[in-house]
Amino acid sequence: MKRTWATKQVDRIVDAICDSYEDGTGVNCIEVRDLPVQGKILEILRTLFVILFPGYVGKQAFTKANVRFVIGDLVNRVHDDLVEQTEKAFLHQCRIRKCEGCDCRAMAEKVTQRLLKKLPQIRELLKGDVAAAYDGDPAAKSFDEIIISYPCIEAIATYRIAHELEVMDVPLIPRIMTEHAHGKSGIDIHPGAKIGKNFFIDHGTGVVIGETTEIGDNVKIYQGVTLGALSFAKDERGRAIKGGKRHPTIKDNVTIYAQATILGGKVVIGENSVIGGNVWLTESVPAGTTVTVSKPDLVYRKGKESARAGKKTGSLRGKRIGS
Amino acid sequence: MKRTWATKQVDRIVDAICDSYEDGTGVNCIEVRDLPVQGKILEILRTLFVILFPGYVGKQAFTKANVRFVIGDLVNRVHDDLVEQTEKAFLHQCRIRKCEGCDCRAMAEKVTQRLLKKLPQIRELLKGDVAAAYDGDPAAKSFDEIIISYPCIEAIATYRIAHELEVMDVPLIPRIMTEHAHGKSGIDIHPGAKIGKNFFIDHGTGVVIGETTEIGDNVKIYQGVTLGALSFAKDERGRAIKGGKRHPTIKDNVTIYAQATILGGKVVIGENSVIGGNVWLTESVPAGTTVTVSKPDLVYRKGKESARAGKKTGSLRGKRIGS
Amino acid sequence: MKRTWATKQVDRIVDAICDSYEDGTGVNCIEVRDLPVQGKILEILRTLFVILFPGYVGKQAFTKANVRFVIGDLVNRVHDDLVEQTEKAFLHQCRIRKCEGCDCRAMAEKVTQRLLKKLPQIRELLKGDVAAAYDGDPAAKSFDEIIISYPCIEAIATYRIAHELEVMDVPLIPRIMTEHAHGKSGIDIHPGAKIGKNFFIDHGTGVVIGETTEIGDNVKIYQGVTLGALSFAKDERGRAIKGGKRHPTIKDNVTIYAQATILGGKVVIGENSVIGGNVWLTESVPAGTTVTVSKPDLVYRKGKESARAGKKTGSLRGKRIGS
Repeated sequence: MKRTWATKQVDRIVDAICDSYEDGTGVNCIEVRDLPVQGKILEILRTLFVILFPGYVGKQAFTKANVRFVIGDLVNRVHDDLVEQTEKAFLHQCRIRKCEGCDCRAMAEKVTQRLLKKLPQIRELLKGDVAAAYDGDPAAKSFDEIIISYPCIEAIATYRIAHELEVMDVPLIPRIMTEHAHGKSGIDIHPGAKIGKNFFIDHGTGVVIGETTEIGDNVKIYQGVTLGALSFAKDERGRAIKGGKRHPTIKDNVTIYAQATILGGKVVIGENSVIGGNVWLTESVPAGTTVTVSKPDLVYRKGKESARAGKKTGSLRGKRIGS
Repeated sequence: MKRTWATKQVDRIVDAICDSYEDGTGVNCIEVRDLPVQGKILEILRTLFVILFPGYVGKQAFTKANVRFVIGDLVNRVHDDLVEQTEKAFLHQCRIRKCEGCDCRAMAEKVTQRLLKKLPQIRELLKGDVAAAYDGDPAAKSFDEIIISYPCIEAIATYRIAHELEVMDVPLIPRIMTEHAHGKSGIDIHPGAKIGKNFFIDHGTGVVIGETTEIGDNVKIYQGVTLGALSFAKDERGRAIKGGKRHPTIKDNVTIYAQATILGGKVVIGENSVIGGNVWLTESVPAGTTVTVSKPDLVYRKGKESARAGKKTGSLRGKRIGS
Repeated sequence: MKRTWATKQVDRIVDAICDSYEDGTGVNCIEVRDLPVQGKILEILRTLFVILFPGYVGKQAFTKANVRFVIGDLVNRVHDDLVEQTEKAFLHQCRIRKCEGCDCRAMAEKVTQRLLKKLPQIRELLKGDVAAAYDGDPAAKSFDEIIISYPCIEAIATYRIAHELEVMDVPLIPRIMTEHAHGKSGIDIHPGAKIGKNFFIDHGTGVVIGETTEIGDNVKIYQGVTLGALSFAKDERGRAIKGGKRHPTIKDNVTIYAQATILGGKVVIGENSVIGGNVWLTESVPAGTTVTVSKPDLVYRKGKESARAGKKTGSLRGKRIGS
């Protein structure tokens, strides 16, 4: 056999790849030591889950005798690791912004300690979220089942941690956290969204909750619901202008059924409202309103043809459901 | 640099967290040693996949000489691990229900051995599912490709294992299994659903199959299909009442195209029917019927404006597709 | 306690399982040593990501001093591992096709080296994709954030690698790669699709891009968009006939909003067109056209009832949005 992988050829390939790094596009990170490390952040997240749901996550068994020691150890570990990663995130941002004299280490310690102090409050919120899942889902058999297996718990707990870091302007790390949960659960909650107590997402795959969404207490949403932007301003080169309230406000006690889409920063869904499945809304709804799609025209015909595209055969069409 | 992370502060944070465990909400598991361990259950699931798809999963190469020894070893391992985990699940349930005198160990051995005896039958079903994928997807190039890479195979195989445990009333573990597959595939099949032979789900992301769904043989569904609940009874405090048939029945040889939604426990889709994409159904359909949405009104206009929300400009609207 | 797991019983179970392998269904791989190993392929993919996004992925810090050595090492590793896996894939295919005299090793070296030579070009494409995400998403704060956390980057980069292997007719491996990305991101891109420059997918969960789809430059799509098949030919036994253009063609500068569905191999969406959310299209659209759904009839009523299924109460219905 001819040897086809020889030094010269390797050299040429490696040179071509390394040459492609010599540009100013920002899609390479040579000589940059301060980027947060995704693996480390996910480790921190896992440890925070052990603290938030003791005995449910990880291999550590908790007893009344050991709990204070184990938690003390985990809190110290999260502290040190999160200070390290948030410092990296701040340093990286400073380098890009070319700002000077920021004490990134002090900022990192401050945000880390604030997050740790918030953990009991986050736990309170999560207790409410678990109870909301139990009350809202007839298939839920116990709190344990919800905590161990429901995808919304991972997505919401991750969001609640990431949101605290986001409001303290920590770069990169909040989004790394929520996109990890998005990948695992199919639920895409931007860390900038504001979400109240007792929040439940059933099934969850395909849910999108945008950056400037505001959600009140006791809200329940189903799979495939989008709380999104209607449109956004662009600059003269057609690029999106950042910032501004682009996503809707959902008031207390609202339920939004599967595949509904609500778009726009000025849209307010009033409290106690119910938005039906498949509804497409770009306007506000007063409190206490139920909005549904009117019964769609369906076409029934005998025989098994391709119905994938809704092709009509003519003669047998037109029977309305329910009419 | 000022030292900001001192013993006293750590103590206060740890105390506050541990205090938050002193409640009766059930969102902590101190002094509970009997909760099934998610990591162990996923390991069992992986081993069962090696047994069900020998040579496709894991690193073990199978030969005619070694197959009986390797499988014997794996079956023993699954036995021991699953007895341990199902015993935990039963013990945990007994403690919550305060029942006495249950022989959780014996129950664990019984359900484990029953599952192991069912494996050849589960394999028969999975062979049919793989063949259904090959017959139903023009992009499928070989059985190997389907087994190694199609997300529906992981979701359906996990469901078929979990369903056996669910019908034997094993707590927690079936749902841990199916929610793991849900996370990986985007396909959410409740372990309580009943699903016949030769089942194929194409693409799969966003599929929801509820707890009391019944599906016949040779059924094919596409991404985003929901087989869900229409509504459910609530108690006087607004909480969902558990139990009851809430999800539809799909008879033999039915095809359901992408994003269709079928809701309600009394809904029956008759055999040989075809449900078109985007159809929203809450009523039964007789055998041999094709149901499609009638062609939607689409608005065409020249020029590139924000179409995200379907805003109309007035003058150019109204051209119907196909008319 | 009675011992219920005795040698005889294990023997019977193992025998029954091993008996089920003695069939010709292809759902077992005994005596087959040439199947590509999924774990190895994912490792190769991870290493390729380190090369494509240096400093962003993995634990290796890159400096100007070490970059050539590290990349050289990684390129060599990918070479050896990918030759091994592609050779397996070719050997496996040859055995199934019963062809003789193929030099699978030489074919494996050829495709591997071609892929490695393509890496700088793939990097150029990915730079454009990252920039398109930044320009197209008001929530995107930096290129770093996009590369580290956006699911579309993982999905598109994986597709761009897998596509190169697919066009060189490597069996099995391209689909293993893209289905892994599908699992993590919810974005299902078949490796056979053709996709141009500056491609952006926002949110992404539920996106399906079929095997024969063609997408031009500067195209942007949102979550839940399906570019799918309208119907496909079947043989006399009802099985899908493989091959043929079944999926649409999307020209340059097209935007397709959330949940839109475009089906059919003859469908062409002309350049600079905008397809609105929820649009269902099975016909071509001329260049520069905006297509939206006409405002749906929504039913508003006071009071909080089940709106899940769009049940009407009669008296309060009928108020159209916007009319």
